[in-house]
Amino acid sequence: MSIKSFLIGSPIESVKEKHERLSKTMGLAVFSSDPLSSVAYGTEEILFALVLGGAALLNYLLPIAVAIVILVAIVATSYYQTIHAYSSGGGAYIVAKDNLGDYPGLIAGSALLIDYVLTVTVSVSAGIAAITSAFPSMKDHAIALCLSAILFISLMNLRGVRESGKVFSLPVYIFIGSLLLLIGASFMKAFGLPRLPYAEIRESGSAIFPVFIILKAFASGCATLTGIEAVSNGVKAFKAPEAKNAGTTLVWMAFTLAILTIGIAYFANHYAILPSADETVLSQLARTVFSKGIIYYVIQFATALILILAANTSYADFPRLSSIMANDRYLPRQLSNRGDKLVFSNGILILGILSALLLVIFKGDTHSLIPLYAVGVFTAFTLSQIGMVRHWVKDRGKGWFKSAIINGTGGAVTGVVLIIIAVEKFSQGAWMVLIAIPLLVYLAKEVNKHYSSVAEQLSLDSCIVDERDYQHHSVIVPISGMQQAVIGAIKYGKALSHDVTAVYVYIDPVETRKMKEKWDERCMGVRLEILHSPYRSVTEPLMDYIDGIREKYPDGVITVVLPEFVPTKWWHQLLHNQTALFLKGILLFKKGVVSTSVPFHLKK
Amino acid sequence: MSIKSFLIGSPIESVKEKHERLSKTMGLAVFSSDPLSSVAYGTEEILFALVLGGAALLNYLLPIAVAIVILVAIVATSYYQTIHAYSSGGGAYIVAKDNLGDYPGLIAGSALLIDYVLTVTVSVSAGIAAITSAFPSMKDHAIALCLSAILFISLMNLRGVRESGKVFSLPVYIFIGSLLLLIGASFMKAFGLPRLPYAEIRESGSAIFPVFIILKAFASGCATLTGIEAVSNGVKAFKAPEAKNAGTTLVWMAFTLAILTIGIAYFANHYAILPSADETVLSQLARTVFSKGIIYYVIQFATALILILAANTSYADFPRLSSIMANDRYLPRQLSNRGDKLVFSNGILILGILSALLLVIFKGDTHSLIPLYAVGVFTAFTLSQIGMVRHWVKDRGKGWFKSAIINGTGGAVTGVVLIIIAVEKFSQGAWMVLIAIPLLVYLAKEVNKHYSSVAEQLSLDSCIVDERDYQHHSVIVPISGMQQAVIGAIKYGKALSHDVTAVYVYIDPVETRKMKEKWDERCMGVRLEILHSPYRSVTEPLMDYIDGIREKYPDGVITVVLPEFVPTKWWHQLLHNQTALFLKGILLFKKGVVSTSVPFHLKK
Repeated sequence: MSIKSFLIGSPIESVKEKHERLSKTMGLAVFSSDPLSSVAYGTEEILFALVLGGAALLNYLLPIAVAIVILVAIVATSYYQTIHAYSSGGGAYIVAKDNLGDYPGLIAGSALLIDYVLTVTVSVSAGIAAITSAFPSMKDHAIALCLSAILFISLMNLRGVRESGKVFSLPVYIFIGSLLLLIGASFMKAFGLPRLPYAEIRESGSAIFPVFIILKAFASGCATLTGIEAVSNGVKAFKAPEAKNAGTTLVWMAFTLAILTIGIAYFANHYAILPSADETVLSQLARTVFSKGIIYYVIQFATALILILAANTSYADFPRLSSIMANDRYLPRQLSNRGDKLVFSNGILILGILSALLLVIFKGDTHSLIPLYAVGVFTAFTLSQIGMVRHWVKDRGKGWFKSAIINGTGGAVTGVVLIIIAVEKFSQGAWMVLIAIPLLVYLAKEVNKHYSSVAEQLSLDSCIVDERDYQHHSVIVPISGMQQAVIGAIKYGKALSHDVTAVYVYIDPVETRKMKEKWDERCMGVRLEILHSPYRSVTEPLMDYIDGIREKYPDGVITVVLPEFVPTKWWHQLLHNQTALFLKGILLFKKGVVSTSVPFHLKK
Repeated sequence: MSIKSFLIGSPIESVKEKHERLSKTMGLAVFSSDPLSSVAYGTEEILFALVLGGAALLNYLLPIAVAIVILVAIVATSYYQTIHAYSSGGGAYIVAKDNLGDYPGLIAGSALLIDYVLTVTVSVSAGIAAITSAFPSMKDHAIALCLSAILFISLMNLRGVRESGKVFSLPVYIFIGSLLLLIGASFMKAFGLPRLPYAEIRESGSAIFPVFIILKAFASGCATLTGIEAVSNGVKAFKAPEAKNAGTTLVWMAFTLAILTIGIAYFANHYAILPSADETVLSQLARTVFSKGIIYYVIQFATALILILAANTSYADFPRLSSIMANDRYLPRQLSNRGDKLVFSNGILILGILSALLLVIFKGDTHSLIPLYAVGVFTAFTLSQIGMVRHWVKDRGKGWFKSAIINGTGGAVTGVVLIIIAVEKFSQGAWMVLIAIPLLVYLAKEVNKHYSSVAEQLSLDSCIVDERDYQHHSVIVPISGMQQAVIGAIKYGKALSHDVTAVYVYIDPVETRKMKEKWDERCMGVRLEILHSPYRSVTEPLMDYIDGIREKYPDGVITVVLPEFVPTKWWHQLLHNQTALFLKGILLFKKGVVSTSVPFHLKK
C-alpha cells in the first residue's frame, strides 16, 4: 500500500471532481499536441515512400503535402459541424453508434482504441528519435528511453495530474514558434538561391509505376491527420460558449497544421533532404539552417516534448472511451471504475502496458509503426462523417442539407483515402489493424452478450434462488493430520452448525493409526470419518462422501471448511495450500456446496 | 479431466507398486544410455577446443582421450566401492549428507539436480543433431524437434511407463554394436594406409599457450564421464545379489565406454575430421567410412535414440532425488507427492519445463551447453568420494584402509579435474553453474527453515489456537445491489448464524435510494447497514465496520459472505469477481475473520 501511495499519491474525494474550463489559447495547446506533433514525422514518411522511386519522384513531396493540407481542410470543416451538433463531446464511437447502429459504432470504437495505443507508441518513439538525432550517442538506449517515457506518463496520469492546460501551453507554443522560426529562417537563407538538386540515389528504384509510389507516399503522409478529431471529443472542456470556442480553436489548429506541413515539405525539398534511419528529416532541416546551435537544440527538445504530450492525450482519450464502452457493456466492467484519483486507472494501466509491448515488438521504429496507424484514424473519420450525414438527414434542422453535403464530402474523401491507405499499406502492417478491428468488435459483442445474459440471470424477476431457508447445514472439515491449523478449522466449523464431521483420507496405514490415536486423545466433540483411497487421491473419496451427504439432505447446504496457511513472506505461499486450493477449485463447481478457508496466520 | 486421462492414462493403484528387477544385460542397457551416449559428443568437444590452437594441436586428441579413459577407470573403481557400501542406493546427495553433513549434501544434491536438467537438454539436442547431420534439410527445425522430444519423454514418464528394461535394451545394444562395427570398419579401411594430414586451418590460432588449450580440451572431454554414477544410484533395481550384479555391470560399462572413446578418438584423428556446426564428428566419421549407406543411417538413428534414452534417465533421477530432498524438507513438499501413476509427477513436469527453457535460451546448441554440464558432474563425484573416505574411516570394517585410499584417490583426482574444468570453462558458462549451486543450496536451507518453523507452530505441544468455542458468530454479507446472487449469499449467511447483516457501501445517492427501496420490498429478515464512502472505496468503510464488530465481540468470529460467479467459460472469469477477490485478499490478513464465497452458477 505504501509503494502505491508513494507512486500515486493520496486519494481524491468524489465531491472534488470539477472541470477545469479551457480558454481558446489553452484549448489549442491541449488539443493540438497530437495533430501538430505529426508534423515531426509526416514529411519524413512521405520521403521514405518516395525515395524508393528514385530521385525524380522526390519532387512530388510538395504536391503531396498540398493534397494532405486540402484533406486537413475537408476533415476540419466536417468536424467543425460535429462540434456544433454534439456539444457534449462527439467521439466517432458515439456519433457512429447513435446514427449508424451498434456495429459501425463498435468498428469506430475499436479503431480508435487501437489508434490510441499506436499514438502512444508512435509519438514516444518519434519524440525519442528527436532526442537521439540531436545526441547520436544515445541511439543505443532509444528503447529504454521510450519505455521510461511511457512509464513516466502512465504514473503522472495515475496520479491524476489535472493541470493539463498549464503543462501543455508552453511546449506547444514553443514548438509552433520554433517551427515558424525554422520556416522563416529557411526562407531567408534560401532567398534567391536555386533549389539544391538531389544527390544520385544508388538504387534508382522501380519507377515503372510511379503512380503507385506517389499514392503510397500520400497514404504515408496521411498520418499527419491523426488527432485532428481531438477537439470534437472535448467540447465540454471549453469555456462557454463551448461549441463556438471549440470550433474557432479547430480552425486555428487546422491553419497552423497547414502552414507547418507545407513549410517543412517545401524546404525539405529545397535543401534536398533525404530520409535516414539515424537522423529525422526535421533535425536535418534544422541542422542545415541553424547548424548545431542553441536554436537547433530548442527545436529538437520542443519536438520531443510535443510528441510526448501527444502521447499524453491518448492517456485521456483511451481510458475515457474504454470507460464509455465499458458502461455500454462492450468492455470488461473494471474499465469503468474510477480509482482513488478519480481517473480510470485500469484504462491507463492497459494503455501503458499495450503501448510498451508494441514498442518492444517493433523495436521503437516509428517508421514501421505508422502504416498501422493511419487505417484506424481514417476508419474513425469515415464512420464519424457518415454518421453525421445520417444525423442531419434525421434531424432536418435549419441548413441540414448543406451540413449533410459537407459531412458527406468529408466522409467520401476520407473513405477513399482509407481505401488507398489500406491497399497501399496492406503489406507494410495495415493488415494487422484490418484483422485487429474485426477481432475487437467480435470480442466486444461477446462481452456484451455475456453481460446481458448475466444481468438476465441475476434479475429478481426470474426465480433462480429459492429464498426459503436451508433445511440442514452439514459442515465437513477435511484434515491431513492433527495440528493447530486443523484445530482452528474444527473450532470454526463448530461455530457454523451442530453437524460437524472431520474427514481423513486413508492412504498410509501407519499414518492413519497415529492420526486416529491423536484424535481420540483430543476430544473436540466432533465425529471423525476415515475414507479409504486405493488410488492415493484425496479428492475422489471426499467427493463421493460429499455426494452421499447431498443425497441425504437434498434441501440442505454443505460447507467444506479448509485450513489455509497465511505466510509472512509471499514465496512461502508456494510451499503450502496446494491441496486446499485444488479442492476449492473442484468444489466451486458442485452445487449446494460452499467451501471456506479458515486462515491460520504463521508468525514467521 | 478427460484431456489429462487421454494424455496420462488411467491411475494405478498403490498396492500395485513393485520393482522390476534387472538382469546384468538389462541393467547395462538401462544405466548405460547416459554414460555411453556421451561418446556421441565427447570427441567432438575435445576437437572444438583443440581446433582453436591450430592444426598442430589436433594431434593431442588421442592422448586426451587416453587421459579421460584413465579418469573413467578411477571413477568407476571408486563407485564400485560405493555400490558395495550403499546397496540401497548411494547417490552423491545421500553419501555426502550421511558422511559430511548437510551443506556438502546440499551442494552435491543441487549440483545433481542442475545436471539432470542439463542432461536432458544436452542429450536431446545432441540426439537431434545426429538426425539433422543425416538429413541437413531438417536443420531449420532442430529446436522444434528437440522440444517435441522433451514433450514426448515427459508424457511417457507422466504415464508411468515402467517397461524401461525392455525399451532400453535394443537401442543401447544397437548403438554399441554399430559403433564397434564403425571402429572395426575404420580399422579395416585404414589398414596399412598412413594417417591423413589435417588441412591447413585458416585461423592458425593463438598457440602461444598450448598447455591451456590442451587443458581446456581435456576439460571439455570430461563431459564423457557424465552418468557414470547412475549404476550406484540404482543398486536396488538389480536382481539378487544386487551389489555384486551392479558392480559387474559398472565394470562392463566402464570397459565399453573406454573402447568406444579411444576408438572414435583414434579414427577421428586418423581421418583428419574437423568439428563443424553442421555435422557431428561421429556423423562425419561414419560417412567417411560407410558413405551415406544403410549402416550410416543406422548409426545416426541409434545415436539419436541412445541420446534420447539418456535424457530419459534424468526423468527417473531428477524426480527421485527431488522427492528425497523434499522428504528431507529441503524442497517444496509437492515434489514428494506421487501422482496417479505412482510417479513423482511434479518433478517430471519441472524437469520438462526447465530443460525446455534451457533449450530455447541456448537455442539447442549442444556445444554451448556442455561447459555448464561438467562442473556439476565433478562436484557430485568429488563430494561423493570424499564422503566415502569419511565412511570408511568411521566404519573401520575389513579392508577399510584400502577402500579409503581408493576413494581418496578418486576424490582427489575428480577434485583436481573439477578445478581444471571450473577455471578453463569459467568464461564459457561454468560461472552460471558456480552461481546456481550456492543459490540452490541457499534456497534449500530457507525452505527447510520455513518448514521447521511451521512444524513448530503447528505442533499440538504449543497452544496457539484456543480450543474453547467462539462466544459469538457475526455474519456480514457485503452487497452491491439486489440480485439473485446476493439473495443466495444472504440465504447461506442465515444458515450460519442468527446475527446476519447485509452491508451496502454508499457511493452514488440515486443508486443507494433505489437499492434501499428494493431491499424494503424484499423482506428477508436480515438487517441492512448502509456505509458512507467519501473516497469511493468499498474496502475502507467495510474494514472499519468489521473492526467495530470485532471490538464488540472480542471472543467471537466474523464470517464475511461474498457471492462468487462461476462462469461457464474460463474467460468470463475476467469479467467478474474482481472486487470479491480483492476483498478476500485483504480479509485473509485480518485475525478473527473468515471469508466465504457462495458460488452462483451462471448457466451460460
